[in-house]
Amino acid sequence: MSRDICIFQNFLTGAHKNQIEAAAAETGFTPHFFTESQFEEAKACLHDCSCEVLYAQRPDLLRAAPAALKWYCASSAGVDVYCTDPTLFANPDCMLTNSNCYGVTISEHVVMVLLMLLRRMPAYEEIVRNRGWGDQFPVQSIRDGEFTLLGAGDIGKTVAARLKAMGAAKITALCRSGKSEEPVFDEVLSISELDRVLTKTKVLIMALPGTPETTGILSRERIGLLPSDAYVINVGRGTAVDQEALADALNRGALAGAALDVTVPEPLPADDPLWSAKNLILTPHISGNLTLGYTCDANVDLFCADLKNYAAGKPLRNLVDRKKGY
Amino acid sequence: MSRDICIFQNFLTGAHKNQIEAAAAETGFTPHFFTESQFEEAKACLHDCSCEVLYAQRPDLLRAAPAALKWYCASSAGVDVYCTDPTLFANPDCMLTNSNCYGVTISEHVVMVLLMLLRRMPAYEEIVRNRGWGDQFPVQSIRDGEFTLLGAGDIGKTVAARLKAMGAAKITALCRSGKSEEPVFDEVLSISELDRVLTKTKVLIMALPGTPETTGILSRERIGLLPSDAYVINVGRGTAVDQEALADALNRGALAGAALDVTVPEPLPADDPLWSAKNLILTPHISGNLTLGYTCDANVDLFCADLKNYAAGKPLRNLVDRKKGY
Repeated sequence: MSRDICIFQNFLTGAHKNQIEAAAAETGFTPHFFTESQFEEAKACLHDCSCEVLYAQRPDLLRAAPAALKWYCASSAGVDVYCTDPTLFANPDCMLTNSNCYGVTISEHVVMVLLMLLRRMPAYEEIVRNRGWGDQFPVQSIRDGEFTLLGAGDIGKTVAARLKAMGAAKITALCRSGKSEEPVFDEVLSISELDRVLTKTKVLIMALPGTPETTGILSRERIGLLPSDAYVINVGRGTAVDQEALADALNRGALAGAALDVTVPEPLPADDPLWSAKNLILTPHISGNLTLGYTCDANVDLFCADLKNYAAGKPLRNLVDRKKGY
Repeated sequence: MSRDICIFQNFLTGAHKNQIEAAAAETGFTPHFFTESQFEEAKACLHDCSCEVLYAQRPDLLRAAPAALKWYCASSAGVDVYCTDPTLFANPDCMLTNSNCYGVTISEHVVMVLLMLLRRMPAYEEIVRNRGWGDQFPVQSIRDGEFTLLGAGDIGKTVAARLKAMGAAKITALCRSGKSEEPVFDEVLSISELDRVLTKTKVLIMALPGTPETTGILSRERIGLLPSDAYVINVGRGTAVDQEALADALNRGALAGAALDVTVPEPLPADDPLWSAKNLILTPHISGNLTLGYTCDANVDLFCADLKNYAAGKPLRNLVDRKKGY
């Protein structure tokens, strides 16, 4: 009896397919490849072949999979959508893994928007768009700066390494456990200390998974704790931020600036206050897109490594606790 | 007889003045401080006190100084304006020093615009300005990337260190001598090899002083040697680039994008083709502005260190060869 894998991904190159085929052959699996235009074919394959494994980023395809599915490998880092809707899994014990390969691309996005904020690019871009010149707005630097990271996972660590390399003076990371083995953080605190930390924060970088505990974590009250010269960057989930309060604070000058790559909802409605908020760098959830070669390669590497674990009956490296949500 | 210093600077804090006063006292000098609104007073002081030293960034003030002036310390890094016009110096043997303290701020500008180009921010910003969403443009990364630096001075070295820390695969620096002790460069070549290097360059970062040899160095012909997916960044002098050819290449898609912080002239005229060139990030000569605390501190440190050298009759650390222009 054959053991089958359904692979529904748009980003795979020929080399990626060869790599997956080799890993499948080695472990006794048959891979079936589909791209975005082949949704119905992929669905049929899941049923006809009783696929054990699905490597995809499509909740509706997962929902269509029969109870034969034992492992769903999401090619995204965030898996909140899979953890909040148990009806997606016909097999209640189906394992879920995520793909922690976005640290490099997201950290480069963070460094970019951080420098854009510190160096007043929104103001300079507006001047240049109007064919003006000057003025010399006061700029700030990563060097000798202090940074607060909310989230100490793959993204937080990779961001911290870049900030330290550029001369950051102090990096404080907050996470649920309040502990991290990562030497790149100068200080690791429990999220329960967030209120106290916010009052002294100059730059808040948020990279949290979407869970019930992180929803609304940057509330109106907490935005009010930040100094008026503080910057906020969010590359985790839009649900973490009270967007209306953030837009208010930016427009009132109660915050110096912000950069949001994630919002609720996505895309934003035409009349959302974020579109016109002052000193806001808004990007359409692109910090971790699957176009960067490095990210794509790492994504396939992670899947192939866990395929070997799966075949050998070993624990999956990127297993998600579907109840905790990460 | 008193020995006097005229200091004409807008950026000095109280602490900076104290530091200069202490260095002056230690070396037997009397400092006189002026800010931008006190041009006439500064001019009078240069004459009345027969100042030996002028610490400023104003060619017209230098021109007003009598032959008693023995050392002009420019607070800028680029000193082309002082080297191309000998009539600025009443004393033909007056020493000229520059202030190499802009590496940190300019390198952060370079990392910012480089990431903006690699991550397609001009396109994403336009989408968001029109309240649109998507698309997933293919992005590139500093990690594993190859970079060509034209200029291996303070700025080149500081940029290279940041790119290496972010995982750059290879950094080739070109300079006049073709030699550098700096271990951060993977390869150092003579500028005579520029044509050969350009044909394989993905990102060209220009940080050259303005000299007769660097004027027009990125000519129309050389722009034509760059691959069509290449990016060009210039933070040196606008004179180095054939701007019309660059705008042409961008608009034709013969180059993927560019970022210019320096142009000829500055400000650009209202009808300059650069304003509307495709995928061009234009900034109004701000990469090294004197608003960053670190840069200001380093500027004063350099002046005070050379004041001690000057008083002791030792060679000045930042002495410029007025004939060579750097």
